[in-house]
Amino acid sequence: MAGETRKLAHGAERIDFQTQPARYRHWRLDVDGALATLTMDVDENGGLFEGYQLKLNSYDLGVDIELADAVQRLRFEHPQVKVVLLRSARNRVFCAGANIRMLAGASHAHKVNFCKFTNETRNGIEDSSANSGQHFICVINGTAAGGGYELALAADQIVLVDDGAAAVALPEVPLLAVLPGTGGLTRVIDKRKVRRDHADYFCTIEEGVRGRRAVQWRLVDEIAPASRIEAKVAARVAALADASTRRGEGEGVALTPLDRRFEADSVHYRHVTVEIARAERIATVTVSAPEAAPPADLAGLIAQGAEFWPLRAARELDDAILHLRSNEPETAIIVFRTQGDGAAVLACDALLEAHREHWLVNEIRQYWKRVLKRIDVTSRTLVAAIEPGSCFSGTLAELAFAADRAYMLIGERQGENRPPAALALSPLNFGAYPMSHGLTRLQSRFQAEPADLDAARARIGEALDAESAEALGLVTFALDDIDWDDEFRVFLEERGSFSPDALTGLEANLRFVGPETMESKIFARLTAWQNWIFQRPNAVGENGALRRYGTGERAEFDMHRV
Amino acid sequence: MAGETRKLAHGAERIDFQTQPARYRHWRLDVDGALATLTMDVDENGGLFEGYQLKLNSYDLGVDIELADAVQRLRFEHPQVKVVLLRSARNRVFCAGANIRMLAGASHAHKVNFCKFTNETRNGIEDSSANSGQHFICVINGTAAGGGYELALAADQIVLVDDGAAAVALPEVPLLAVLPGTGGLTRVIDKRKVRRDHADYFCTIEEGVRGRRAVQWRLVDEIAPASRIEAKVAARVAALADASTRRGEGEGVALTPLDRRFEADSVHYRHVTVEIARAERIATVTVSAPEAAPPADLAGLIAQGAEFWPLRAARELDDAILHLRSNEPETAIIVFRTQGDGAAVLACDALLEAHREHWLVNEIRQYWKRVLKRIDVTSRTLVAAIEPGSCFSGTLAELAFAADRAYMLIGERQGENRPPAALALSPLNFGAYPMSHGLTRLQSRFQAEPADLDAARARIGEALDAESAEALGLVTFALDDIDWDDEFRVFLEERGSFSPDALTGLEANLRFVGPETMESKIFARLTAWQNWIFQRPNAVGENGALRRYGTGERAEFDMHRV
Repeated sequence: MAGETRKLAHGAERIDFQTQPARYRHWRLDVDGALATLTMDVDENGGLFEGYQLKLNSYDLGVDIELADAVQRLRFEHPQVKVVLLRSARNRVFCAGANIRMLAGASHAHKVNFCKFTNETRNGIEDSSANSGQHFICVINGTAAGGGYELALAADQIVLVDDGAAAVALPEVPLLAVLPGTGGLTRVIDKRKVRRDHADYFCTIEEGVRGRRAVQWRLVDEIAPASRIEAKVAARVAALADASTRRGEGEGVALTPLDRRFEADSVHYRHVTVEIARAERIATVTVSAPEAAPPADLAGLIAQGAEFWPLRAARELDDAILHLRSNEPETAIIVFRTQGDGAAVLACDALLEAHREHWLVNEIRQYWKRVLKRIDVTSRTLVAAIEPGSCFSGTLAELAFAADRAYMLIGERQGENRPPAALALSPLNFGAYPMSHGLTRLQSRFQAEPADLDAARARIGEALDAESAEALGLVTFALDDIDWDDEFRVFLEERGSFSPDALTGLEANLRFVGPETMESKIFARLTAWQNWIFQRPNAVGENGALRRYGTGERAEFDMHRV
Repeated sequence: MAGETRKLAHGAERIDFQTQPARYRHWRLDVDGALATLTMDVDENGGLFEGYQLKLNSYDLGVDIELADAVQRLRFEHPQVKVVLLRSARNRVFCAGANIRMLAGASHAHKVNFCKFTNETRNGIEDSSANSGQHFICVINGTAAGGGYELALAADQIVLVDDGAAAVALPEVPLLAVLPGTGGLTRVIDKRKVRRDHADYFCTIEEGVRGRRAVQWRLVDEIAPASRIEAKVAARVAALADASTRRGEGEGVALTPLDRRFEADSVHYRHVTVEIARAERIATVTVSAPEAAPPADLAGLIAQGAEFWPLRAARELDDAILHLRSNEPETAIIVFRTQGDGAAVLACDALLEAHREHWLVNEIRQYWKRVLKRIDVTSRTLVAAIEPGSCFSGTLAELAFAADRAYMLIGERQGENRPPAALALSPLNFGAYPMSHGLTRLQSRFQAEPADLDAARARIGEALDAESAEALGLVTFALDDIDWDDEFRVFLEERGSFSPDALTGLEANLRFVGPETMESKIFARLTAWQNWIFQRPNAVGENGALRRYGTGERAEFDMHRV
């Protein structure tokens, strides 16, 4: 992988975010009626990169890709599941967290991307609980340290065995001179509501907290001796299953493998294409509208299953974004394009709106929400090119609203016969896809004049030409054919010449106006601090704590406070 | 200054945060009835450090220390002032922002501290407007670039001359590969509510925006040709003065110079002492209670003026914290101690509560709020040592609540005859001193069980012994004499051995539970990203943009996106 100092294991050419339970090396997924069990049993020799072993149920990105896949499949493939147990197959250890040798040898970019993806996975667990009624209980049978405890923190409830040894810990600061980077600090105070001085103590001791204090300080929900823990857990499973709102009638939808074709400078899916102009450092992601008419009704939608365009397109787009993030670090800009019949996209949206109470439709909407959130926190300049023949309609219009800028061409392009670009809104633009800070993209856009939001809502379903879209504030610039090439090209060139770091910081700040949530705090406050610390010699220098860990030598620190 | 690569100008031994209008080199403060005018006229040769000139009204920390002083004096010394004009004495330039040569040659720690202080100054301007009815209008007569525009953003209103040249700009990203570091990004979207795509455009062009677009995009409130600008400004002054809630009867309170004595390892004020144990990297800040009885009534309070203990102690504590931040970068831990009669502190609090509507009392409360906020964002481990003879009462108890931990000794110390430590609450702990994210420290503390807040409130005025304080959740650990020395000493030693960077990140995350505000977003999201960028070679490396600026050579960037 470009920019990576390390080789992927087994001669892999890229990090692949697609997997399936039959291929898991690190997790076991068992489903029994309303209860699923996700058992972590990391294959020491199954690391994504060469050069380290995944001891003590420690993990790398590859382990987390499987977890994310399992959480996703539980939502789509197992409509009957209401409770998920997270547990460890090991004795005396739940999970030792992110693998330290992996971190010590990883590029800065990989560390940051690794934390981002693992954060998204944990947010996904909470999203399942909040929006799909699949509740998680984490059973900690030994040491849950660092990322191990952070994984537990994503669950609704944590039960810890009380055997005088099992403990929860966030030992990153004392051991490694980095932060718990997967939401731990935020979840400890904001979700578990641990008092900050207790949290300070907890996060600065290596050995963690166990027994009664773990409950008193709210770090776990319950402790139980080994002999009684299964009974305690069973009672919690029963209670959560009772409380679950999940009503998943019928069969699940199998998330069949995506057909993809990777070429040197492109990736081809059915509805999504990625083309990379390496010299310009631009990746163009084109999403195509459905070619066939959408199913006539809910039954037809269910029958299509994973082939239903919104689901298929979401999966492909998600994979494409993840691929670009991890495997194409030199990409400066992602240009979103769309092509096809906007009416077909709106027809799919209409189905998704009419049947929003159905579990599968809900899952598809929630999934689009998550894909779009993933785009929001992608550290590339995002731009929408809204040109003749495009279909930025409804759900696909969110790509334009997620973009840092949207350029829209006025009228036809000379010498072409494609219809002028039109942008169209659907009800889904007004609530289905909140960003991580809780506002929709249009709400964020119209902070200054909420009346503008109503004005936009009044135009739902209309094919808005460039000048109307600009007047409504839906696009940044409407340009005619003559100005387009010049302005758009100059923008891309200039943008590509700026410092990528400065752009990452700029975009991370401008994309999120207004409120913050636990999730956005994790991506903003916590992640930014961690990124800083991941650059500092005290952590990653030759004598820093990450490098020195396990060598028996103490790290050497620059003791100046910044 | 330790840790600084540069020498302070004129052989100064330290950065001094005390000044007064007669000594200003960069600002002029004129007061005329309800209107004050702050005119920026930076002395090119008045830089705080050697090695750069402050051309084009660019600024360094020294310039901002004068601005902070002026804003502070306006509140205390000029009760009649309702509107403050911010303007430039230069033709065709308002302010070129932070001086780039200063930044390029500054240590990372100085850059971070510089941004922190300038942020506090701008927050202070907004605090004046919100809580003292002193409203700011910024008149931009030329280029307001970078920090120059960020200063304008702190004002309530911005008026820009419309002469085809005057412009507002945030050119940091394209010119310098860093972020606008003084709240600009946050204020553009969250305060001015500029649409994010407009903000993206605005922040990526060097030349900025002028004329009608500046108004349309909400970057300024009004434009006017040079011939009419004074009339426009006068109308705004009149309207804001009318709307102001400021009712400052009587004379102002002169903020007389603080008597300080700097020794090698200590600083001595009247009510505050700083002692530095260099080997242990610990600074002990001791605040003493008033020795005399407080004034009997409001008239007595007014007569004392700057000598009134709460005001004097706040000024001293503020100066001590700023001194530690900038001049003692190797300090790892600040231990807060208090000594004296807690009842005297509570008596002052009672005055401050009884007369809260009086403008001077309001100013004193607001100032304590700001000092405590300054402590909250100070990147040192903060710990309160609550021992016999101490007076963590009311306002001073906030030091314990601001601390990362508070240790309280149970009973007397053997061989001493000082009374056992008691902690006492006053009404001021329940609303007078919100943190930057809007919650009081006790609200933050009791997020898990708001009923605990009520339980604490029910004990206002009581002298709470260590066990009671611990039971109420007001301190972290209550320890007896035997455990104290061991536990407290081990804590200090351990803490001092951790990576300062990791601690900075840890504390910045744990101190702020729950909501975020524009102010806390500036300190968290924006500052953390800027800190990261300030470490990256693209900005600060030998071929980075900050170093190359003005050399005619283009910066060289690592084009990997992180």
